[in-house]
Amino acid sequence: MSKIVMKFGGTSVGTTEKIANVAKRISREKEKGHDIVVVVSAMGKATDELVNLANEITENPSKREMDMLLSTGEQVTMALLAIQLNALGLNAVSLTGWQAGLVTDNVHKNARVEKLDGSNISNLLNEDKVVIVAGFQGISNSGEITTLGRGGSDTTAVAIAVAIEADICDIYTDVEGVFTSDPRYVTNARKLEQLEYDEMLELANLGAGILHPRAVEFAKNYKIPLRVRSSYVENEGTILKEEVDVENNLVVRGVAFESDIVRLTIEYDVPFNGSLASIFTTLANNHINVDIIVQSIVDGVRPAVSFSIKKESLAEAITVLETHKKTLGFTFADFEVGLAKVSIVGSGMVSNPGVAAQMFDRLRKENIPVKMVSTSEIKVSVVIPQADMIPAANALHDEFDLAIKQ
Amino acid sequence: MSKIVMKFGGTSVGTTEKIANVAKRISREKEKGHDIVVVVSAMGKATDELVNLANEITENPSKREMDMLLSTGEQVTMALLAIQLNALGLNAVSLTGWQAGLVTDNVHKNARVEKLDGSNISNLLNEDKVVIVAGFQGISNSGEITTLGRGGSDTTAVAIAVAIEADICDIYTDVEGVFTSDPRYVTNARKLEQLEYDEMLELANLGAGILHPRAVEFAKNYKIPLRVRSSYVENEGTILKEEVDVENNLVVRGVAFESDIVRLTIEYDVPFNGSLASIFTTLANNHINVDIIVQSIVDGVRPAVSFSIKKESLAEAITVLETHKKTLGFTFADFEVGLAKVSIVGSGMVSNPGVAAQMFDRLRKENIPVKMVSTSEIKVSVVIPQADMIPAANALHDEFDLAIKQ
Repeated sequence: MSKIVMKFGGTSVGTTEKIANVAKRISREKEKGHDIVVVVSAMGKATDELVNLANEITENPSKREMDMLLSTGEQVTMALLAIQLNALGLNAVSLTGWQAGLVTDNVHKNARVEKLDGSNISNLLNEDKVVIVAGFQGISNSGEITTLGRGGSDTTAVAIAVAIEADICDIYTDVEGVFTSDPRYVTNARKLEQLEYDEMLELANLGAGILHPRAVEFAKNYKIPLRVRSSYVENEGTILKEEVDVENNLVVRGVAFESDIVRLTIEYDVPFNGSLASIFTTLANNHINVDIIVQSIVDGVRPAVSFSIKKESLAEAITVLETHKKTLGFTFADFEVGLAKVSIVGSGMVSNPGVAAQMFDRLRKENIPVKMVSTSEIKVSVVIPQADMIPAANALHDEFDLAIKQ
Repeated sequence: MSKIVMKFGGTSVGTTEKIANVAKRISREKEKGHDIVVVVSAMGKATDELVNLANEITENPSKREMDMLLSTGEQVTMALLAIQLNALGLNAVSLTGWQAGLVTDNVHKNARVEKLDGSNISNLLNEDKVVIVAGFQGISNSGEITTLGRGGSDTTAVAIAVAIEADICDIYTDVEGVFTSDPRYVTNARKLEQLEYDEMLELANLGAGILHPRAVEFAKNYKIPLRVRSSYVENEGTILKEEVDVENNLVVRGVAFESDIVRLTIEYDVPFNGSLASIFTTLANNHINVDIIVQSIVDGVRPAVSFSIKKESLAEAITVLETHKKTLGFTFADFEVGLAKVSIVGSGMVSNPGVAAQMFDRLRKENIPVKMVSTSEIKVSVVIPQADMIPAANALHDEFDLAIKQ
């Protein structure tokens, strides 16, 4: 008998029919004798509909009140799922975030979990109940309802798994697991059986979009095995853990890619004057996410900085930079649109210095020009022309033998 | 400066446009310098939609989970209203039932208020905030979310008024106040400026439908002035208090009526055997509400009991009676459909014994046959043919001079 946390996202519970399917899934796990806690998101478009209602009133609603508003979404799902499980003859009980003991800081709309007192959940499990918890929401120390921001329900699931010392935390999604690359675009992409937390973090940050990075980090910190599974297909999915089996470990485990990247370059007429931090602080204050940053010296004297942002932030980034041009003391050089980012990820890279070289070499052979490069211990990213993105991903997937079962 | 509780029902907050109107109304009261607590119901059809979702799953959902589900309705309204008030520049903050300190017993779907700790609300009022509270919901001593049943938001409003020692509790509705009778059917019906709690209780029980009896009782017990006002028209409405000004007090203050009444009669072949209580206990256990009960002796020996129920309960009542016929030891006599109830209400009746006689006399003059009679200290009800209901109401309204301003 194991303790299992099962998390179902919004599309998995989008209608009462889908909730019935989820209930059957839970029922099958329960029949195996496991203790089960279920974490649910809001039904399908419910959150969007609530946001639209608020936007009918104002474009800038109070964050505290948005948390009050949005936290109802998960509460509706959990009650309906409990009703469905009861109808199937299971003893199920639903809990809001605060009833489940999930305490956060007081940053509305983007709260961080501070602690989870699992005693209420544990008591209910001891009564042989299936416990259903509203994801995404918690309560601050001052008794305010908070929400965890994007991917918050994943974080709730992991926090509960930590608190009740669960054996595994299953994240049910639209996909069958984590793939070596996006199977819609990379012909030979293959489902991974295992993946390390850090590798998943890089894949998540690169837009794989299956799990929220914060949830993965949380699982990593507390060494909770996290499994990505399909809501619709019965299979084992992909297990995330601290270290995957070494023997068959490949150096590169995945190829991620992201389109609609823009590269901006700014130069300084005078030698570098220390305003580098100021520029990125200014951009951050204006909510422009900067990804890759590359610094260089032009003409041997004038410093230059290139950085990449998402296409949709371009107009605002230019406005912000022009506005602060004088105080920040730079010359705006140019920007290049129509770019994409392709990354290879794998924890084995750290001990294999030739991996980046192998990547660049293959791209050169494919005649794909590299505009920017960024490396970390377990990832190498390149910015290339958008038209080359899919060919590059396929070529790199082939180059690092990802189609072969480990 | 006064402390005011303002309660708005579901139709008053049915759309974001209507919420904007409510916000303006609140804003005008706030400008007068009052401390304001607002209690809201779920938006228009929101509760029905949630009930429908549950009924897609099962016809008999768990009451605990229905409370979880339905309590989200008010939470959505309160957040949207707070967002709207903030957009108007007012400092508004919303509270769920448990945040507002409303503690109930643990009877899900029909909980009773046990206490309301107003300290949270009072602290927020001291910070000059407009406090918006979700009506209809509370928390049990074991930390479960409960709902108060029908008319629960009115009860929440009165409970808050009691806890914060409000000067008045304003219930905003679709109507301009309490009328001497239903103006849709009684030509000269007139809005009452004042009414006693007990009179309102009789009017409410008789189907006037403006205020829930439990809320009126609550206000009566704690002597909170309760005012029924229009959400749309600016006027003074009707104030409910313990004793209205005596000098112009009429004996009869209102004529209420209710259609679709059925009279059932049961007889005993043997002298009365004490099973009278058993019959009504059996009916109550089967959720059949009995209104008027009249006991008589047929043929000088055999006891008979007539009682009235709502038409929609007839089929079930007959089934229940037939099922228990033997154990209860009666002969089912007959029933009469197509009846209605008309009542006159007024606290002055208690000292005016001729009022009932005057009522019967007028009905006789109008050739309206009386099938059953029931009297209390402040009310006389008659059951008459449905076709005579509106003529009877108009005649009695005229008979007791209700069209004339007191």
